[in-house]
Amino acid sequence: MNAPTLTSTANRLPLDLASVLAPRSIAVVGASGNEAGYSSRSLTNLLRTGYAGRIFPVNPRHTELGGLACYPSVRAIGEPVDAAILLVRSDLVPDAVRDCVDAGVKVITVCSAGFAEDGEAGRARQRELVELARTGGSRLLGPNCIGAVGVAEKVVACPTLNITDVFTPGAVSIISQSGGMAVNLFNRAQGAGIGIRGFVSVGNEADIDVADLVDALADDEHTKVIVLFVEELRDVPAFTAAVAKAHRAGKPVLALKVGRSEAGARSSLSHTGALAGSYRVFRSVMEQIGVLVVDSVDALIHTADLMAKVEPPASNRILIVSPSGGECSYAADRASELGLEVPALGEDTIRALSRDMRFGTPSNPFDLTGQVIGNSGFLRSVLDELERAPEFDLALYAIPTWGAHDAERLLPGFIAAAEASTKPTVISAWTAANLTQRGEQVLAAGRAAHFGSVDAALTALSHLVRWAGLRSAATAAGPRGGTAAVPRPAGLPDLPTEHQAKAFLRRHGLPVSREVLLKDAAGAAGAAAGIGWPLVAKQLCAGVVHKSDLGLVRVGVRGEADLARAVGDFADIVAAQGLESEGLLLAELREGAEVIIGGIRDPRFGPLVMIGAGGVLAELVDDVVFRQCPLTREEAGGALDELAVGRLLRGHRGTRYDRESLIGLIVDFSELFAASGWLQQADLNPVIVSEAPGGAVIVDAALILDPSTKE
Amino acid sequence: MNAPTLTSTANRLPLDLASVLAPRSIAVVGASGNEAGYSSRSLTNLLRTGYAGRIFPVNPRHTELGGLACYPSVRAIGEPVDAAILLVRSDLVPDAVRDCVDAGVKVITVCSAGFAEDGEAGRARQRELVELARTGGSRLLGPNCIGAVGVAEKVVACPTLNITDVFTPGAVSIISQSGGMAVNLFNRAQGAGIGIRGFVSVGNEADIDVADLVDALADDEHTKVIVLFVEELRDVPAFTAAVAKAHRAGKPVLALKVGRSEAGARSSLSHTGALAGSYRVFRSVMEQIGVLVVDSVDALIHTADLMAKVEPPASNRILIVSPSGGECSYAADRASELGLEVPALGEDTIRALSRDMRFGTPSNPFDLTGQVIGNSGFLRSVLDELERAPEFDLALYAIPTWGAHDAERLLPGFIAAAEASTKPTVISAWTAANLTQRGEQVLAAGRAAHFGSVDAALTALSHLVRWAGLRSAATAAGPRGGTAAVPRPAGLPDLPTEHQAKAFLRRHGLPVSREVLLKDAAGAAGAAAGIGWPLVAKQLCAGVVHKSDLGLVRVGVRGEADLARAVGDFADIVAAQGLESEGLLLAELREGAEVIIGGIRDPRFGPLVMIGAGGVLAELVDDVVFRQCPLTREEAGGALDELAVGRLLRGHRGTRYDRESLIGLIVDFSELFAASGWLQQADLNPVIVSEAPGGAVIVDAALILDPSTKE
Repeated sequence: MNAPTLTSTANRLPLDLASVLAPRSIAVVGASGNEAGYSSRSLTNLLRTGYAGRIFPVNPRHTELGGLACYPSVRAIGEPVDAAILLVRSDLVPDAVRDCVDAGVKVITVCSAGFAEDGEAGRARQRELVELARTGGSRLLGPNCIGAVGVAEKVVACPTLNITDVFTPGAVSIISQSGGMAVNLFNRAQGAGIGIRGFVSVGNEADIDVADLVDALADDEHTKVIVLFVEELRDVPAFTAAVAKAHRAGKPVLALKVGRSEAGARSSLSHTGALAGSYRVFRSVMEQIGVLVVDSVDALIHTADLMAKVEPPASNRILIVSPSGGECSYAADRASELGLEVPALGEDTIRALSRDMRFGTPSNPFDLTGQVIGNSGFLRSVLDELERAPEFDLALYAIPTWGAHDAERLLPGFIAAAEASTKPTVISAWTAANLTQRGEQVLAAGRAAHFGSVDAALTALSHLVRWAGLRSAATAAGPRGGTAAVPRPAGLPDLPTEHQAKAFLRRHGLPVSREVLLKDAAGAAGAAAGIGWPLVAKQLCAGVVHKSDLGLVRVGVRGEADLARAVGDFADIVAAQGLESEGLLLAELREGAEVIIGGIRDPRFGPLVMIGAGGVLAELVDDVVFRQCPLTREEAGGALDELAVGRLLRGHRGTRYDRESLIGLIVDFSELFAASGWLQQADLNPVIVSEAPGGAVIVDAALILDPSTKE
Repeated sequence: MNAPTLTSTANRLPLDLASVLAPRSIAVVGASGNEAGYSSRSLTNLLRTGYAGRIFPVNPRHTELGGLACYPSVRAIGEPVDAAILLVRSDLVPDAVRDCVDAGVKVITVCSAGFAEDGEAGRARQRELVELARTGGSRLLGPNCIGAVGVAEKVVACPTLNITDVFTPGAVSIISQSGGMAVNLFNRAQGAGIGIRGFVSVGNEADIDVADLVDALADDEHTKVIVLFVEELRDVPAFTAAVAKAHRAGKPVLALKVGRSEAGARSSLSHTGALAGSYRVFRSVMEQIGVLVVDSVDALIHTADLMAKVEPPASNRILIVSPSGGECSYAADRASELGLEVPALGEDTIRALSRDMRFGTPSNPFDLTGQVIGNSGFLRSVLDELERAPEFDLALYAIPTWGAHDAERLLPGFIAAAEASTKPTVISAWTAANLTQRGEQVLAAGRAAHFGSVDAALTALSHLVRWAGLRSAATAAGPRGGTAAVPRPAGLPDLPTEHQAKAFLRRHGLPVSREVLLKDAAGAAGAAAGIGWPLVAKQLCAGVVHKSDLGLVRVGVRGEADLARAVGDFADIVAAQGLESEGLLLAELREGAEVIIGGIRDPRFGPLVMIGAGGVLAELVDDVVFRQCPLTREEAGGALDELAVGRLLRGHRGTRYDRESLIGLIVDFSELFAASGWLQQADLNPVIVSEAPGGAVIVDAALILDPSTKE
């Protein structure tokens, strides 16, 4: 067996998060007399922002720096040091790390570059660093990172001048594999008034990695939401376990991945391989384990902010209220486009509201019209009535670009209603520089979640709804169980024929179309009668994968004469093309919706099942999802619902398909594939799903075996 | 003939745009002693912002208002008045309009509500107003609007307090059917530092409409870009002509439409009808005439800003440069997702760049790394070299959240390079409140187009690229010609059979599958031999539209015995279901890609052709576009390229289809449909496109005739 192992590769040690985000003392190793110099910036930042812990500059060429005593080494400090940040030449790093370890530093942050990102020699230097730290019981952050920031404690252990000095503490923690983007995300969030617990730049993840930090933040009382900026996950099983722990603690994990646009095709051996682009797989698996994947920086920070403030709603049914008719329409359009439902008002609600309204008919979106101007009683009664309406589980109050006058008179009514609501209720108020400054102050003083545009508000709400669904599904599924290994059948070649592949699947209980393999045409009529007319006839030939391209498949053979003609035609083609016959396959004809089910082993994510629409158009519109094996029935159903073909299977134009049978097939295949480590890739293509009840049946199958597993 | 007329419905008079955006004098009718009152706000705004023209308050109960002489009527002013803004009770509006007309006011803006939006009586009152204005040679803006603003002249003829008082003049003009959104768009743009020429709120469009204003702005020397916020276009032919005029003047027209999420299905008589949602049709037709349709407020204003500053690029190939590796990856991902191409560097460029680089290999995205810090010479030489690279036609410099230090040292180098570039080159610099203020000032002082986020920059660039394509296609197509009317054939019923429909299409030169209609099975064998085996047999029955649902279609009949069985089966079904046979149809069997071509008459947009992928999945993924008839070959090809099935037709997995034949079929059908005003809807479904060269053939067709056109 040569399957990728799914056990954690790192020998994980406990991580003291306080020593990263809130150390009581920090040694700044490499700070120099040049205050603007790169290596001094961590010291400059710590001094500037008012960090209340002890700061120890370390540099043998100085006795004093920035008004503080400077030490020749960390050991020379002579008292406990929680954290050290190193910015020295890469060849000096090992000695500096050794010094920290000897001094009992709990977390050593190495900002210096020149390690694993710098070729084989660099990788060796990096392994050496980890060895040094671990044997001494220290943890190492980096190298090649930009450090960490803890907002409440004003720990800016970070060598950049490009960092805000207006700090808003909050419950969102950021972990980033890019130092530059860690700082951007932090500044951008703080600039938008979004409270942040801190950020950690993990750099090369030589020791402390994303999984360590998610695990630690799951336990952190100050963190409510965990935000990731990642390119690749180093240790998926550890990460998966950490996310599950965060979920148990009620904490959402959100991710933005870069490297999405890399060439998609990883392998063209199978359809599944061709479709398994790394971002598609990443996104699918993250969603399966309940991590919300977003695609923009602003969506990431604004969604995190909302999640820190409200509980997820019971459904996606949204109420929209605005004093502007144009804005009502705009918000309703955006909400629908983002997958939120904008339901009509119920009769009871309309009756209750009509009592107060001078103009128009109550509806959703609800246009307050000019009646709201100067009439705060009307506003309160309308919002109270709508709060009681059972039609909605979340709400948006969409405010125009209001100057000070309206902001002061009218915003408080909206804020009070949003604060009092038992449903997630947010306010969008378009920002417009000076004009809206007073409104922004009024909003910031309240507790209601608020956004600077309708779009930002609705994007965050739609992400909140989606996350709620992902989290429930992931929690319900629980940890993925192991399955007893299925050995490679003796005699099965590395590239089995269609008939061999189907026989293997059938032996393991999967529904395969009824078929008979004949050596030649003799006995075809009798065999055909056993299958029933009409049927499908296929000429198998050595080395021919795409039989239909050569005219070696005939669908809908209706009787003996027809079959005889087909066999004759096949023989002509085989002779003309100089092929070697491997037999004649007669199979039952199935009708229904075409689906492709595939299996692939990902080096990071392990055995994955792919589910997608069949047919050429499906591939062009990218209608596939991936899931880690094995799947539960609920996961399989949820995966189908992500697809256009899934909507078809739930019924379209009066036709309903046997979705339940397909779900069973997917679950069974996912268990078999997970257990068959010798199976590299599989295409069940097509699986035909008949009208309900009629079953789902594998009509064609291709398997690719790992050649190294041959006995 | 009962087809919707496509001639302009309005009797269009000339519009003096200066009297809307830059009048030399304004009468404010209805201003009162209550300065904060709604009716006084226009006066307050004009006084507050420093309008340099003459202002005449009009109110019989005052002799002085806001320090100005107040007149009992407009006539009483006794000197020429360019514009008047009215905010009086709706029952007083007619007299006030008459007064303005008598005084020779060129443009009368009626803000008062209570007209066409208020039932039949309101519509009558509105018609009366228009009559009054037109007979006197005045033009009327509104009613039920919020006026207009001209920025350079500080004309704030607009009754809202929620308007910015920091004005940035520019070349973007806004026309809005929503008063509230006119103000929001204006404030939001001005707040973002985007220069605006002015906005016009058109309200009920009783007289001056969107088409009038686009036409006038096409001539306006201060306007470079025209932005629309619309729900519905009142007069499509006039609007189309105005857009063509704007294009001749080199001015882009952008639109944001509300009412996108309304129930999509307009009619279920045909597939085409079911797919013709009003937004789908709007968007398709707008794009055909070269209007770029965007879906968010911010995309609208930022794209307009960019269009006012740069010429469209020659292609979508973008260069990305950033000092942050994480940001390079992020920007490249976003660019790809938005349809921009991020090509690799050519060998010559790599060679030239490698001379200067200390770290890494030059690539696109180009990571400047830390080498750029403190080395402006390096930055200049890199950007100069990349400017010369023929691999790109546009560029983004993506800047992190920079504080004052880096902003002052490094931003000027980027700005200078962007200003000097001969290709559209923009700068994104993430904003983060106080931290980035200095950078924003530095950018605002330069002439380079700049954005506060990577996303905003790339969205605007991708829209610019798309618009360039739309404009060229629209300009190449020219005005849509008329076609000689085709009379309704005598004897063709309102709902023709498939055979009748195909016979009509064939008579007009369209390729229809070869077929024979037999009264009954007698002679079937002979007829079949003429068509060739295998063939398709269909049993036609009165009132049966979906024949295959009843088992009345057999595809791939391979010989006489097979045909006899099919005919026998059909007879059993006809008998069992109590159907009335209308004959047996034998047709050639076609293989290839399935496409649906439809025709529909839209009350606003006239005869439209729909082009989409065939098959049930296509409908689920919404793969259709609409175009006004008749189409040119280039337009038909462009429409196909918008579709997933269009990518299939251009070749997929080694198979190429006869796209040229399909284009010819679409063009011919669009001319026939345009000329056949009695034809309400048509479905050519499927049209089967064979592998190239093999043709495109109509395999099934349904026509729905206008019953009122029967002789």
